[in-house]
Amino acid sequence: LEASSHFADRLVGRVRALGHPLCVGIDPHLSRIPPLFRRGAMEPSEATTSDAVRDFLDAVVDRLEGRVAIVKPQIAFFEQLGWPGLRLLRDVVARARSRGLLVLLDAKRGDVGSTAEAYARAYLGPGAPLRADALTVNPYLGRDALAPFVERAAAHGDGVFVLVKTSNPGSGDFQDRPLAGGEPLYEAVASALAEGARKLAGPETGWSSLGVVVGATYPEQAERVREQLPRSLFLVPGFGEQGASAADAVRAFVAGPAGREGGVVASARAVLYPPDGETLDARTWEKAFDAALDAATARLAEAVAGGA
Amino acid sequence: LEASSHFADRLVGRVRALGHPLCVGIDPHLSRIPPLFRRGAMEPSEATTSDAVRDFLDAVVDRLEGRVAIVKPQIAFFEQLGWPGLRLLRDVVARARSRGLLVLLDAKRGDVGSTAEAYARAYLGPGAPLRADALTVNPYLGRDALAPFVERAAAHGDGVFVLVKTSNPGSGDFQDRPLAGGEPLYEAVASALAEGARKLAGPETGWSSLGVVVGATYPEQAERVREQLPRSLFLVPGFGEQGASAADAVRAFVAGPAGREGGVVASARAVLYPPDGETLDARTWEKAFDAALDAATARLAEAVAGGA
Repeated sequence: LEASSHFADRLVGRVRALGHPLCVGIDPHLSRIPPLFRRGAMEPSEATTSDAVRDFLDAVVDRLEGRVAIVKPQIAFFEQLGWPGLRLLRDVVARARSRGLLVLLDAKRGDVGSTAEAYARAYLGPGAPLRADALTVNPYLGRDALAPFVERAAAHGDGVFVLVKTSNPGSGDFQDRPLAGGEPLYEAVASALAEGARKLAGPETGWSSLGVVVGATYPEQAERVREQLPRSLFLVPGFGEQGASAADAVRAFVAGPAGREGGVVASARAVLYPPDGETLDARTWEKAFDAALDAATARLAEAVAGGA
Repeated sequence: LEASSHFADRLVGRVRALGHPLCVGIDPHLSRIPPLFRRGAMEPSEATTSDAVRDFLDAVVDRLEGRVAIVKPQIAFFEQLGWPGLRLLRDVVARARSRGLLVLLDAKRGDVGSTAEAYARAYLGPGAPLRADALTVNPYLGRDALAPFVERAAAHGDGVFVLVKTSNPGSGDFQDRPLAGGEPLYEAVASALAEGARKLAGPETGWSSLGVVVGATYPEQAERVREQLPRSLFLVPGFGEQGASAADAVRAFVAGPAGREGGVVASARAVLYPPDGETLDARTWEKAFDAALDAATARLAEAVAGGA
């Protein structure tokens, strides 16, 4: 595939080639692992659960090869398994990258100074024990807390996605608060990223490896963020599960050489846990998974097509 | 020790008995592990580093027994070691709790819905693979994102500390932004916690297990937060390392039966890495560590004494 050492260039190149911006969320809800992978265990013990999750995610990653540009493991679902969960996540991430998938680790980390540096070393750059291609981070602590992530990403061609306007209803509590000047907090966060975003623009596509998270459930807010960050990639959660349409999800995408582009749209449960995947038969599960994946892909491909 | 099943009651009871609010931060900076524990290794490999960190932290925890109420491991410094780091952290936490120390895990987690639930299950309540007594969380995503942490803490007698005003200079970027009504964002976050804080008040002391993080570097802001949250425990970082005095660190503490109280003051580097602890002799290291611990303890004990 692409040899680019720049995250945004790598990601946009693959999305263009595939014709859709779907990012599959890797969220192993323990209660929803399909029966096929549970080996008949009804009561999940720590060991059987960890084995079931591993078998399930191996199968998922293998089926995603060549069909999506990027996957987004949610680290919380691995942390709930303790240290074996982190070991499992390391293996899932390595498998995905070996299959040519980019990996965006959804960890929403954020801390000050040397602590932020430790988090960045854990997940970005060479030598990271669990190396992803990009990481989500939380801006509440301020720009000096974001800097270690951005600097490490810039140095090693990785990406960072900063939470700006999240997809949950409670995102209104603080993110929407109007500041004294009239703009809501999330816009102030976005504007604080503008300079960094320019610095991390890719040489091939112009898209920046300093991206933002903006929920599919808030398409109008996404347009406002796009005005402030014209070349930042958006990670858009909330498609499908939270009632947002494909058109809403790509509202802030802009014309590109292969349709509208400017980010990736995450879907987890709708792809991972289709109702007809509740089976003990491998072929039936594969067909259910493929159908769910094809449906999500097709909806997004249609939404970005021809809008240039 | 205390049999209370309520975090704030447990913590305040121990702080009163000891006469000081010091919380020792467990931050294993790899480059600062004392030579005594490095076993002569100059180039830290993954394995030797992990062993050195384990030996160092075992010794630290053993020396803290009976001398502080609570320790605060910073999970980032364990995550940078990959999954063996999480296994090590589990062991350090278990050792600390077996020595009668409370454990406040500094993880600053924050996410929506079922993801927040997964984080809460990882670190709070029975069955957590890495069970702490309390956890730091980030409020940016809103109240519905905090709820799973608060609910699990309430159900199992654990604690939650929400970031309000952090100790770093960049905390001004967003936390200090004045809202349309005039108050800064951090005050809005504090006031959003008031109802929950009342619900988690302890039956013995009246202090709440829903606490807040307010940096020692911002004593006037701490007073404002105290007005909004009269019975929330404060976790106060930034004492010593970031230029804040003991008096600044306890500015928002109030009169109690054994001096001023209302939180704990964290110090990591000043206690863990005293300059004269750079030795290969065990007795010399122990004396240096004890002296640094005693110095921090005495400064805080003096600051809270007699202020009733």
